[in-house]
Amino acid sequence: MSCQRLGRRTIRYFDPPSILASAAVTGKKEAEGPLGGFFDETWDDTTFGQDTWEKAESQIQKIALETALRKAKLKASDLDLLFGGDLLNQCIATTFSIRGTDIPFFGIYGACSTMGEGLCLSSMAVAGGSARIAAAITSSHFASAERQYRLPLEYGGQRTPTAQWTVTGAGAVILGNHAMPPYVAGFTAGRIVDLSVCDANNMGAAMAPAFVDTVCAHFRDTGTGPKDYDRIISGDLGTVGSSLASELFEREGYRMDAVQDDCGMLIYDAQRQDVHAGGSGCGCSAAVLCGYLLRQMQEGVWNRILFCPTGALLSPVSSQQGESIPSICHAVEITMKRDET
Amino acid sequence: MSCQRLGRRTIRYFDPPSILASAAVTGKKEAEGPLGGFFDETWDDTTFGQDTWEKAESQIQKIALETALRKAKLKASDLDLLFGGDLLNQCIATTFSIRGTDIPFFGIYGACSTMGEGLCLSSMAVAGGSARIAAAITSSHFASAERQYRLPLEYGGQRTPTAQWTVTGAGAVILGNHAMPPYVAGFTAGRIVDLSVCDANNMGAAMAPAFVDTVCAHFRDTGTGPKDYDRIISGDLGTVGSSLASELFEREGYRMDAVQDDCGMLIYDAQRQDVHAGGSGCGCSAAVLCGYLLRQMQEGVWNRILFCPTGALLSPVSSQQGESIPSICHAVEITMKRDET
Repeated sequence: MSCQRLGRRTIRYFDPPSILASAAVTGKKEAEGPLGGFFDETWDDTTFGQDTWEKAESQIQKIALETALRKAKLKASDLDLLFGGDLLNQCIATTFSIRGTDIPFFGIYGACSTMGEGLCLSSMAVAGGSARIAAAITSSHFASAERQYRLPLEYGGQRTPTAQWTVTGAGAVILGNHAMPPYVAGFTAGRIVDLSVCDANNMGAAMAPAFVDTVCAHFRDTGTGPKDYDRIISGDLGTVGSSLASELFEREGYRMDAVQDDCGMLIYDAQRQDVHAGGSGCGCSAAVLCGYLLRQMQEGVWNRILFCPTGALLSPVSSQQGESIPSICHAVEITMKRDET
Repeated sequence: MSCQRLGRRTIRYFDPPSILASAAVTGKKEAEGPLGGFFDETWDDTTFGQDTWEKAESQIQKIALETALRKAKLKASDLDLLFGGDLLNQCIATTFSIRGTDIPFFGIYGACSTMGEGLCLSSMAVAGGSARIAAAITSSHFASAERQYRLPLEYGGQRTPTAQWTVTGAGAVILGNHAMPPYVAGFTAGRIVDLSVCDANNMGAAMAPAFVDTVCAHFRDTGTGPKDYDRIISGDLGTVGSSLASELFEREGYRMDAVQDDCGMLIYDAQRQDVHAGGSGCGCSAAVLCGYLLRQMQEGVWNRILFCPTGALLSPVSSQQGESIPSICHAVEITMKRDET
């Protein structure tokens, strides 16, 4: 056994895998946001030199993985397993980004929770011995997401105040058993939560209950509370979902004000950059984790965070059929000290 | 460490997880095929009592999981982790099928290789101690797949001779550490193989090289060959892909005639049922495994099989953009005796 099971949904590793390196790559709008200086690479050209938006998204992922490997002083051939996925139908941003690399690959789909799921599974693989070195990658692109989920950009469609802006960006994390911080100490797996929100332009509201459900399960399973973490960060609830989450936490008896934050609110200056409720997309939490959160930890600002990407598991077809939005959130505990695990 | 790593892509468990139960549920056409008598439940009504094809597909998955749990004498609340996915955009057949079950969930995407990926990850979770009981589920539906990937049924589109027929069906497998056969002894993880086949109506040809690549890696990593297995079964290569695979194996020096088979050829009588090159879809290999292959093992016909579902990781968008078809194949070794692991 490589881990201890706590409750039904939480596991903690006896020998926690290390994050050997990470990389965040984004487009222009993200570079102009408050975290712009933290990303490894940003491009003014949001086509990333490609001739379609889908290929542009693959390219961002490719650059992120190559950058993370270079930072870890590793080659693609050192990776025993790669977990990756994205928002595009049939996850083509990912499969086309790694075509030609020869890396053993498992495709995952968790919508905007993908980086959380990737960290759960890659840490499980490393801790259990299935991989010496594993990686998790994901991406999103504003233009490929808009035309798939909403309208082609050329239509100039209006956006509602609760709408969020899909981040053009990617993140890659490399894990191994190297006994150096930061560590993936464990995780609380998500389950599907659906409180009957049907508005596909208000995904923050749909996902907030999943975030609260998973964090409360984590607190119960581990006997911890908000004061035990330096930050507890949701993926992309935005302003609407984040304030709903605060209310739901209060009903559960937790005051989260001092520690709660959201990648979707961190990545843009909502007023100045006209993104309405904030950022979203798989690339949102991935780029914020790889560029900003892990760097804050390595610089000693935080010692223990709970990284909780949230995913809205709808499709345009399910919305057209009048269905509400099933959501999920995986919580990943990242620490700088092993004895805290 | 819960396993031994062999080469870069193969792992074998020290304490191999058991398949506690499985269930296969299909539609009418599959019931009328050669394996009809092996499925746990078949429906003449391919709407499965639902008002859309997508909900019908969710319903098949739901019935398969409930049936497998019942056969294992378990409840949904006994499952610590569920791995599932399907072919529909954003995997909605799966997320809607398990909504309301409270089962900790990781979404996966491997196209028609999904049951292979699900078995790899659920066995990894059980062997490493992340889950006491885990499950893998997947599905496909002829009508939901046709309208998403090709044309709405009402168009009455013509099919090419190399085309395959998407299986209406689902499979569910429950794994645990119960020390009784059949066992998931280990697996060889797939990598993306793309030999530039661009014809989305000939996915057998696109996937055949991935099948051969993974099986040859398995042979090399484990020091085995065709004679060490009772059956080596691809997912859904159909007649065209299977004969291409035989040729590719011969070039690699392996004569597979005595052991090679294909779920897509087993599930239909191609001539009588007018399915052209054979069956396909996530539900094809899943239903054949859960209904037929595992039963043959339990009845003592076979002792050791290599189950190798193949996935074509294209999307309609990638094909419209002129891209070739990246493919993948995961090989799962299933045995009746522990000492063979």
